[in-house]
Amino acid sequence: MNISSDSEYLKNLGQLVIDQLIAYRSRSMTGADKVLELKPFHELDNKLGLDKFVQQQPISVQEFQQFLDLYLHNSMHIHHPRNIGHQLAPSRFPTVLADMIVSAMNNGSGLYEMGPSASVVERWVINWMLNKIGWSSDIGYQASGVLCSGGTMANITALSAARNLASPSTWKYGCNEQQVILTSAESHFSISRAAGILGIGCDNVITIASDDTGKLLVDDLSKAITKLQDSDKKIVAVVANACTTSSGVYDDLVAIAEVCNKNKIWMHVDGAHGASAILSEKYSHLLSGIELADSVTWDAHKMLQTTSVCAGALFKRSKNIDAAFTGSAPYLSLDEDCDYPNQMRRTIECTKPAIGLKLYLTLALLGEGEVASIIENLYQKALGFYDIINTRDEFECLCKPESNIICFRIAGKCRDEQKAIRNRLIQKDGFYITETEVNGDHYFRLTVMNEATSSSDISTLLDLIIGYGDLGGNNDLID
Amino acid sequence: MNISSDSEYLKNLGQLVIDQLIAYRSRSMTGADKVLELKPFHELDNKLGLDKFVQQQPISVQEFQQFLDLYLHNSMHIHHPRNIGHQLAPSRFPTVLADMIVSAMNNGSGLYEMGPSASVVERWVINWMLNKIGWSSDIGYQASGVLCSGGTMANITALSAARNLASPSTWKYGCNEQQVILTSAESHFSISRAAGILGIGCDNVITIASDDTGKLLVDDLSKAITKLQDSDKKIVAVVANACTTSSGVYDDLVAIAEVCNKNKIWMHVDGAHGASAILSEKYSHLLSGIELADSVTWDAHKMLQTTSVCAGALFKRSKNIDAAFTGSAPYLSLDEDCDYPNQMRRTIECTKPAIGLKLYLTLALLGEGEVASIIENLYQKALGFYDIINTRDEFECLCKPESNIICFRIAGKCRDEQKAIRNRLIQKDGFYITETEVNGDHYFRLTVMNEATSSSDISTLLDLIIGYGDLGGNNDLID
Repeated sequence: MNISSDSEYLKNLGQLVIDQLIAYRSRSMTGADKVLELKPFHELDNKLGLDKFVQQQPISVQEFQQFLDLYLHNSMHIHHPRNIGHQLAPSRFPTVLADMIVSAMNNGSGLYEMGPSASVVERWVINWMLNKIGWSSDIGYQASGVLCSGGTMANITALSAARNLASPSTWKYGCNEQQVILTSAESHFSISRAAGILGIGCDNVITIASDDTGKLLVDDLSKAITKLQDSDKKIVAVVANACTTSSGVYDDLVAIAEVCNKNKIWMHVDGAHGASAILSEKYSHLLSGIELADSVTWDAHKMLQTTSVCAGALFKRSKNIDAAFTGSAPYLSLDEDCDYPNQMRRTIECTKPAIGLKLYLTLALLGEGEVASIIENLYQKALGFYDIINTRDEFECLCKPESNIICFRIAGKCRDEQKAIRNRLIQKDGFYITETEVNGDHYFRLTVMNEATSSSDISTLLDLIIGYGDLGGNNDLID
Repeated sequence: MNISSDSEYLKNLGQLVIDQLIAYRSRSMTGADKVLELKPFHELDNKLGLDKFVQQQPISVQEFQQFLDLYLHNSMHIHHPRNIGHQLAPSRFPTVLADMIVSAMNNGSGLYEMGPSASVVERWVINWMLNKIGWSSDIGYQASGVLCSGGTMANITALSAARNLASPSTWKYGCNEQQVILTSAESHFSISRAAGILGIGCDNVITIASDDTGKLLVDDLSKAITKLQDSDKKIVAVVANACTTSSGVYDDLVAIAEVCNKNKIWMHVDGAHGASAILSEKYSHLLSGIELADSVTWDAHKMLQTTSVCAGALFKRSKNIDAAFTGSAPYLSLDEDCDYPNQMRRTIECTKPAIGLKLYLTLALLGEGEVASIIENLYQKALGFYDIINTRDEFECLCKPESNIICFRIAGKCRDEQKAIRNRLIQKDGFYITETEVNGDHYFRLTVMNEATSSSDISTLLDLIIGYGDLGGNNDLID
């Protein structure tokens, strides 16, 4: 059988995938099964039996069904109401449609001619983001940006530009002076990783103290800058969090911008998770001052409801993004004026898929208002869940949540006990939650990404934790 | 209307997308229309009218159809037989199915628990690639790798590891010594860009001369290394091309490996395009010596027939990949033995989509033999097209192709004239070809990615070029 030409076979496989995916999604949303059937790697490896299907190709429709069943069952069920773990959006219809179109077309978005429609859509999406931040060209800025495969790449893009502008010889001749980045300890690991990659060195990320909740202490930032100004170290950037990945709290962007502005230091806002709150009238105040930054990272695949990955690296001044990967090359600033904008100059990626369509179709089909109301609803839900947790004496919350991230712990329990409880919740009870450390203390961490997660899910979760908590230091919990 | 709950609306949209995509693909494959309807950016921007759909949501099914028609029509028609441009595979059924599954699941592949099935599939795909290179664990290596969002990222991953191993203090403390990378001028721009990003400096990529076709001259490499050994510059790596992006020729990997081995220098093979020829009995000799490298970049979204992006960063020794983003951290080498391998430690990306499924389903549904025969067929086709071009007196070929890339030019025509002709071929005649420079000379460049491209397409292309060529220095060609 030649599978390329056997249209009956293809039709059957296509229909099977669509039916299975729809059934899988519906079943997940009802809360059936566990969020995660976490078998040991080698056990799942044996079960999936991947070699077999490759050796016996073309795989029959029945065999394919068998593979797909196993694959889906042993995945993270992201649509499940008891999935309160990572910051990934449960895939919605518009972004899945976009992914299908992107896949079938396989156009690039790096060069205009490799994907004209894709390039126009990317430009629209970037302009929409810039506009939300307050960087529309009509207020005197010529802002710009690029879509990247994730927030880490957007952070690297911004910090590469900041490094090249702070030390203009770096791009051509390498790092010749000691460069530093300043940020709080609660920053995402991609900041210190970016410093390692960029040749700055991850030990040269200077940690500014934060308050108990994870907010950068602006006075300490000022003092650190003053101290550095007497040294031979070059400050590349200050990175502010909006919000922190660990605890979901927002740094004071206005105050940080004031310090950066006074000292003429690049301000980067890592808004991968929290920049989306700017869409909500109720929560946009959390982003006050974001327009004062020089660059912003904003992921669409977290709160803007697209599938992963789709992240904006956004720059207040167009000429600065052109410094990210080319040092200072004046001729590149023409880009904004030319008719065929080639984003390849501004991105690490060469073959760059047409990811902008995910966000465009989400906004076009769901509507901006609906996206804003999803964000508001999830932030609001987190406050409600916090109230439930906070009224129980057995638990301590890190703080009243500012976003859809809630950190809490069992009073008096150690890290290992909490880790063991988390394992049980996943393996036995079918919940999925994460854990984190803030200021050295260990917490359970919930990220409310799903409108289907209910107060009763949270109450059940707490009851289970208390049940395990009663077991105290029982070692068989630690598996 | 609430689009999330109006299942009739969703069904209609879904059906519309599937029908349109199938019709679009069939039409493209017949060779109807132009490969690329290249309107100026602002004209297409106005035509797509993206604002309108966002303001009037929810968009009606008719409006959506109107948008999709425009979007598809104004894209690069990658399945068109006269698309002989970039190195992207025309999307095939198995990889499109994979993309649908990945999108609906939205699982990650960075942490095992974020996508157990996805992680097992990624491991399978990596092992399959390692095996093809000759790095299976049973011959004494403990090889490893990670899938990245593209070959550029894989090159950065490999060169970051090489840099951190050559100068172990770099990761923590930044670049403190002058580091260099050696490669031919025909290397992909991502090598010099990687040097810029990594703080090595793109001027510290030392260009080794290549022969007329773009193959690195190994004697010159030896001389350059000897010269550098007397300097205070640290050699991070030698990058060999398999094949070059510009002309599609393979460096002599055995000879380069001998030089690297003698001088104890990291050898990286950029096999983004050409490593796939290892599947073909007829062409695998081109990759002789690849197993002697320390790291290899191998894209699946070029010759292995997946949609973009899916690239392997492959390491002969597992412990070395752990140096890529963490300097030398001995505790990380446990990773290979542990049951839950967390690829996040080895990749720039944090949220990393489950891209391995693209290649797995391609191999499972098409079969490895069929993929090998597609590669062989495309390489063979290029030789046939070369014969057609080479027998015509008006053209000069750079060389007999070693891959599916052919470079040729009109005898006696200048760069601007050839550029103008290319524009006409795209805009007026519906072909899509690229252009390149090799050793300072300008060439038309064909990449045969589509089995549907025929000798008669090539003859027509040549006739058209000759027709334009007759116009000589006529300036109105240069538009």
